[in-house]
Amino acid sequence: MSENKPVSVVLLSGGMDSCVCAAIAVGESRPAFLHVSYGQRTAARELHAFRAIADFYGIIDRFEARADYLAQIGGSSLTDTSRHVEGTDRRRPGIPSTYVPFRNANLLAIAVSWSEVIGAERVYIGAVEQDSPGYPDCRRSFFDAFSRAADLGTRPETRIEVCTPLIEMSKSEIVRAGTELGAPLHLTWSCYVDSETPCGKCDSCELRRRAFADAGIADPVPCQSDAGSAGH
Amino acid sequence: MSENKPVSVVLLSGGMDSCVCAAIAVGESRPAFLHVSYGQRTAARELHAFRAIADFYGIIDRFEARADYLAQIGGSSLTDTSRHVEGTDRRRPGIPSTYVPFRNANLLAIAVSWSEVIGAERVYIGAVEQDSPGYPDCRRSFFDAFSRAADLGTRPETRIEVCTPLIEMSKSEIVRAGTELGAPLHLTWSCYVDSETPCGKCDSCELRRRAFADAGIADPVPCQSDAGSAGH
Repeated sequence: MSENKPVSVVLLSGGMDSCVCAAIAVGESRPAFLHVSYGQRTAARELHAFRAIADFYGIIDRFEARADYLAQIGGSSLTDTSRHVEGTDRRRPGIPSTYVPFRNANLLAIAVSWSEVIGAERVYIGAVEQDSPGYPDCRRSFFDAFSRAADLGTRPETRIEVCTPLIEMSKSEIVRAGTELGAPLHLTWSCYVDSETPCGKCDSCELRRRAFADAGIADPVPCQSDAGSAGH
Repeated sequence: MSENKPVSVVLLSGGMDSCVCAAIAVGESRPAFLHVSYGQRTAARELHAFRAIADFYGIIDRFEARADYLAQIGGSSLTDTSRHVEGTDRRRPGIPSTYVPFRNANLLAIAVSWSEVIGAERVYIGAVEQDSPGYPDCRRSFFDAFSRAADLGTRPETRIEVCTPLIEMSKSEIVRAGTELGAPLHLTWSCYVDSETPCGKCDSCELRRRAFADAGIADPVPCQSDAGSAGH
């Protein structure tokens, strides 16, 4: 009985992780989909993916928010086109240049505000701690602290749980879970570079390539590196 | 030695409380001023007040962010012009209609993002718990929880303290403190209604009127109710 399921807000960037997170939320709740553009390089491609995935699931309750101040604030190669998005080096220590300062707190704040108005009891976010490349706002401890702030900063009767179903999964587990759930991975956009097809070289493309390879599943989205080869 | 003072980001709406908070921050730190418009009724008047106060203090580092999604999300008479901003009734229980769901978390998230980029160690916000009309996101416990989230969700080397110097003050104490510090209270805008002069009737005007009366100080900003009378 879907009427018994809780209403939720699903943060959906249009990438692979958020798509699989949405697939899980669709099974567990009555979801509304939230996309936040923040002036990142690939904003148009991510918005396109968001709409395609929302259409795929027939989601009527959707909200496309603009948080352009994150690009204006800068401090990240994802939003500052004068900075280079470096290739992958998993041995490289520290926070990658693609870290957008405190981004997930901004996304969650919007999601909690919307949740309180539409009566959603859950906020889903497809953050991954284990395989995330060092982003501090992808840690479980951060989400726990934010949940506490959301509980204290909203109406007494408001109960909003921040759900991070992928937080302990590896990228290959996410690919397998998404495939089993029938998530529309063919509609997702993961690349950090704004080009016609994914670059196949950035951190995000490399993580995705290895995820599909480890899962033994073919990526339905070809990338530039595939030209002339059999696949990722 | 101002060079020894920490850099700070001051959230400045343009109202009386944030103006006095800014005056305190100017004394304790090297402040950058942040204003967030979110589609509230009096956005233009508040922005005007922000600029005037920033000019008064000669602040060069300032950022005007737009978070229009808060008005799009709605749920508040402050942003939804089809809803009535009721007059003051301090005996009225519950959360007032002017509550903007989880607003302060959205403002603080922007402030922390900017702080991390410019190297600010403090975020000042002029929230008042004691005299605030029931807003859950004005409670000290909320700010403590948000501070924890900010600590966990930013770079390991980032240390940002959320400072709420007014949190335990009464409104009349705020008026006295602002007057002693020479805060430009004549430049502030407090009214919830978008009119040429403050309405004198809304919750915010009524709180301000009583604050100046209790402090025994004349409000330098006249309101509509003053027409033909000797003052507030």
